[in-house]
Amino acid sequence: MDLKKYLTLRLSQVDKALNTLLPPKKTAPATMHDAMRYSIFAGGKRLRPILCLASAESCGGTPEAALPLACAVECIHTYSLIHDDLPCMDDDDLRRGRPTSHKVYGEGVAVLAGDALLTIAFEMVAKAKPSKRHPVSAMVAELAEAAGSRQLIAGQVMDIENEGKKFTPAKLQSIHERKTGALIAASLRLGAMSANATPKQLQSVTDFGYALGLAFQIVDDILDITQTSEQLGKSAGKDVKAGKATYPALMGLPGAQKAAALWTKKAHDSLKPFGSKADRLHELAAMMLERKS
Amino acid sequence: MDLKKYLTLRLSQVDKALNTLLPPKKTAPATMHDAMRYSIFAGGKRLRPILCLASAESCGGTPEAALPLACAVECIHTYSLIHDDLPCMDDDDLRRGRPTSHKVYGEGVAVLAGDALLTIAFEMVAKAKPSKRHPVSAMVAELAEAAGSRQLIAGQVMDIENEGKKFTPAKLQSIHERKTGALIAASLRLGAMSANATPKQLQSVTDFGYALGLAFQIVDDILDITQTSEQLGKSAGKDVKAGKATYPALMGLPGAQKAAALWTKKAHDSLKPFGSKADRLHELAAMMLERKS
Repeated sequence: MDLKKYLTLRLSQVDKALNTLLPPKKTAPATMHDAMRYSIFAGGKRLRPILCLASAESCGGTPEAALPLACAVECIHTYSLIHDDLPCMDDDDLRRGRPTSHKVYGEGVAVLAGDALLTIAFEMVAKAKPSKRHPVSAMVAELAEAAGSRQLIAGQVMDIENEGKKFTPAKLQSIHERKTGALIAASLRLGAMSANATPKQLQSVTDFGYALGLAFQIVDDILDITQTSEQLGKSAGKDVKAGKATYPALMGLPGAQKAAALWTKKAHDSLKPFGSKADRLHELAAMMLERKS
Repeated sequence: MDLKKYLTLRLSQVDKALNTLLPPKKTAPATMHDAMRYSIFAGGKRLRPILCLASAESCGGTPEAALPLACAVECIHTYSLIHDDLPCMDDDDLRRGRPTSHKVYGEGVAVLAGDALLTIAFEMVAKAKPSKRHPVSAMVAELAEAAGSRQLIAGQVMDIENEGKKFTPAKLQSIHERKTGALIAASLRLGAMSANATPKQLQSVTDFGYALGLAFQIVDDILDITQTSEQLGKSAGKDVKAGKATYPALMGLPGAQKAAALWTKKAHDSLKPFGSKADRLHELAAMMLERKS
């Protein structure tokens, strides 16, 4: 199966599972379930859940077993976007080409819709099947740590605290490892855990995830200054406007492009122990670097 | 042991466990871990975690086994208070006698501190030991459902949506079952699950929890109009000011007092199958009805 067909197939599996796992739209209170679905079904590329499924396959497992975990990761990602877009954070009106949650439902409901997606993510993990090496409790701990105050949330706090401040590349990297790398790594690790991964396999997908996450973030920074809002489906140039540190700002556009290529190479190298079993992960990494939005 | 000694002992166990389970104050980013601890160690009465421990004891288990679950429930409760107090929700400046989280740390960090406490709650559940009848995955699902979009969060959304609107007592009850009852019932159920409770025992503590939750909420409504802010440690009279439906508004003060007594009786009656093993739960229920703040 070529990559395009693979993506279409997996995206449709993830969307179908999300549709089943989320409460129906008219469940009371309808506003809440409408708001949760508005953000979840906003045309996201499902990169994290697809990485989760591909990671399970690389470790010899099935996408089906990884599916509740893939959906959980997407709920965490979507919740973090809803809260990041709030007026008290990045104050963004546009996301995935549509008005942000608080623009449509008001701030109160947007905060709660984020809370609800964060919460239901763990309900989804609870529905996963344990593998021999990895009980469900380890999967819950994995997701909670990646989404928690030392990883994903830490990245967001550091982002807020450092707006307009001087940056070293090392500092910027440590923010991105938390804001982007941790959840990508957790997506891969959870998929691997569902496939009964060995400690060595887990380490490989972890290294892959962090390197890929950094490459992904650098590409994001580059697109923010080289693409228009229409092309991106979100407000372009907002990082610069907010005085946020970015790779292009720190090392120039060619420097940032070089750094992205370097981290992408590191990502590919981490998968060596898998041999051809990781072909799909290699393809996904290449695609993520070459994207235009 | 008399009730006062029991409360002091259990409160100190819960506080000690929370101190161990939360990242140390200076963990980076320090602001975040400071904010999490500011709200968790704000002098709360720990009613929900103590109910969790007492429920475990009533089912023949130990408080020690229930402790991670008790801490998880308190983290959920505290996160919900931080988010409820935000300007876009109840807009409250005072909580447990101190400035609310967003007053101290700003709105962005307050939203994230709530997110972080919600997230770490599941990390704590993941640390619980399964009992024969109840795997950890069932405990995670239990907490996620009680805190989720059909229970705790539903109650908050219904609260926002119905401000200033006409109410029936049935409608008000359905809000309070979600906003207050669900988490109290989950506290008791999780304690019971850690103690390998039978389905019958689980049903009894569930009925007890919902009845107690309603009684508790009615008492809350009564205190809101009969006590001062100083006595309560939070803004008094705020429900009336916000045009919120309350039991005293719907049925007058004597009517509300009668309803509180009725639900308290129902709570006590639910515990009959336990006999004297539920003495502590009876005592706790009586105390919660007679409180002045």
